[in-house]
Amino acid sequence: MKNTIEDYEDSFNVSYLGPEATFTHEAALRFFSIDKAAVFKPEDDILSVFKSVENEESLYGIVPIENALEGTVNITLDLLIESSVLVTGEIYLPIDIHLLSKANSLENIKKVLSHPHAIAQCRDWFHENAPEIDFEEVSSTSLAAKYCSEDSSLAALSSPIAADVYGLNIIVEKLDTSESNSTRFFVIGKKENEKESESKTSLLFVLKNQPGALYRFLKPIAERNLNLTKIESRPSKRQAWDYVFFVDVEGHAEDEIFGETISELKNEVSFFRILGSYPKHIVSS
Amino acid sequence: MKNTIEDYEDSFNVSYLGPEATFTHEAALRFFSIDKAAVFKPEDDILSVFKSVENEESLYGIVPIENALEGTVNITLDLLIESSVLVTGEIYLPIDIHLLSKANSLENIKKVLSHPHAIAQCRDWFHENAPEIDFEEVSSTSLAAKYCSEDSSLAALSSPIAADVYGLNIIVEKLDTSESNSTRFFVIGKKENEKESESKTSLLFVLKNQPGALYRFLKPIAERNLNLTKIESRPSKRQAWDYVFFVDVEGHAEDEIFGETISELKNEVSFFRILGSYPKHIVSS
Repeated sequence: MKNTIEDYEDSFNVSYLGPEATFTHEAALRFFSIDKAAVFKPEDDILSVFKSVENEESLYGIVPIENALEGTVNITLDLLIESSVLVTGEIYLPIDIHLLSKANSLENIKKVLSHPHAIAQCRDWFHENAPEIDFEEVSSTSLAAKYCSEDSSLAALSSPIAADVYGLNIIVEKLDTSESNSTRFFVIGKKENEKESESKTSLLFVLKNQPGALYRFLKPIAERNLNLTKIESRPSKRQAWDYVFFVDVEGHAEDEIFGETISELKNEVSFFRILGSYPKHIVSS
Repeated sequence: MKNTIEDYEDSFNVSYLGPEATFTHEAALRFFSIDKAAVFKPEDDILSVFKSVENEESLYGIVPIENALEGTVNITLDLLIESSVLVTGEIYLPIDIHLLSKANSLENIKKVLSHPHAIAQCRDWFHENAPEIDFEEVSSTSLAAKYCSEDSSLAALSSPIAADVYGLNIIVEKLDTSESNSTRFFVIGKKENEKESESKTSLLFVLKNQPGALYRFLKPIAERNLNLTKIESRPSKRQAWDYVFFVDVEGHAEDEIFGETISELKNEVSFFRILGSYPKHIVSS
């Protein structure tokens, strides 16, 4: 019996939002850890992860979808609307942000670099401990670490894996003030999953432009006690003030109860697509 | 009879997201145009607009809440959760993005600066017309114009008013590919509005952690045919994966039908606040 995620004899590519040592890289390593055949490919941006899956250079992609404190990654939702790829998995990763630098202590730091979300999460710490320090926003936590490897007056808000990759010291551990921050990642692919016992299903839809349409959409879900774990809306970009809704529901699209539900709620939509059913990631606490 | 928004004898301050010549500045000028007593104050960021209203340096503030294509301005929603100010007005402004520069033509431009939303909206145009050009993200469309006033190898994606303020040429008109882009702004203040015939009311709430809670929350709204014009969620930041919902409903909180609705839907929430009722902005098309 093979204990791999897919029964592929040969190696397969997994594209992730790079560069190396991002939190997405860490999520990819954890998700595919049991599969020795996975070859990890950093991509420049989330769009490139989608493209590499669409054109089959990679069998899977992995992208951030939402942070517990900072909210949805809009570009990922927007690409899920436009793309035909499926959501084939999810993983939650605890996010602890450390201060990394070539320098050994905070006194020598002139500027702190990071992704805007990480800066937002650590602002309270700096307000109390180093209120005079300057910030610069860059496109990823690991790019921040890379810049710091070239200039010891800089520090990065980044991950322990980035400290290893770029040869930096961890000068302060866990600056983010939240007790329990984490990020959810989606695994995307073209092939549907086998049905598993504990599943989640992601849907997207556009409501008919009628009062009460959202209420009537939710009715068949609520009446069957299906657990709706997320609802989110994004502009459709086709028409101003027109929204696409994203919903996650516990259960598998092939469950009988799900089929009934979907046939009812379809009455309220002008567009509907199942993004995928996938094993629910049980977070150990 | 005075035709002013408030019956203030003296001048009053209106803080807006600056610098001068932002789209928010234009929204402020339009909203308060009939009131000669309004003195407009640019602020560095959205937080400073809220603070100036909270500490009563300004009677009103004006901030972007949502763009038709790019979606919600998360920082504004997050500050509405934390602050005690009211929403006292709304205005929709058509957004046309122009390419501005000291230079006279595109051939001399090395780099294009703008807010990330404006860059996103014009990416298709550059892909077709100048695919080799570099972009740099800055914090506002008008800051982009300001930088361009100092360097003729730069161009900004910005507003006609910014071209005037910073002495730039409009080298390409209306690059954004959408026919009908617009941004909605909130006017914030501490004083409740007089009730008007066509009103909108903004609410925020946290649902009880029970399956079907959102469905049951929407029920009293749908049953009375009240028109829900927006629903949006943001992380509460108090606890991971805990959401605050924002809802806009047509009608005034003092309407009888609204009072009944609210007393019913309060059963489904652990937190509830009326952000304000305000005159609905009728967009002429």
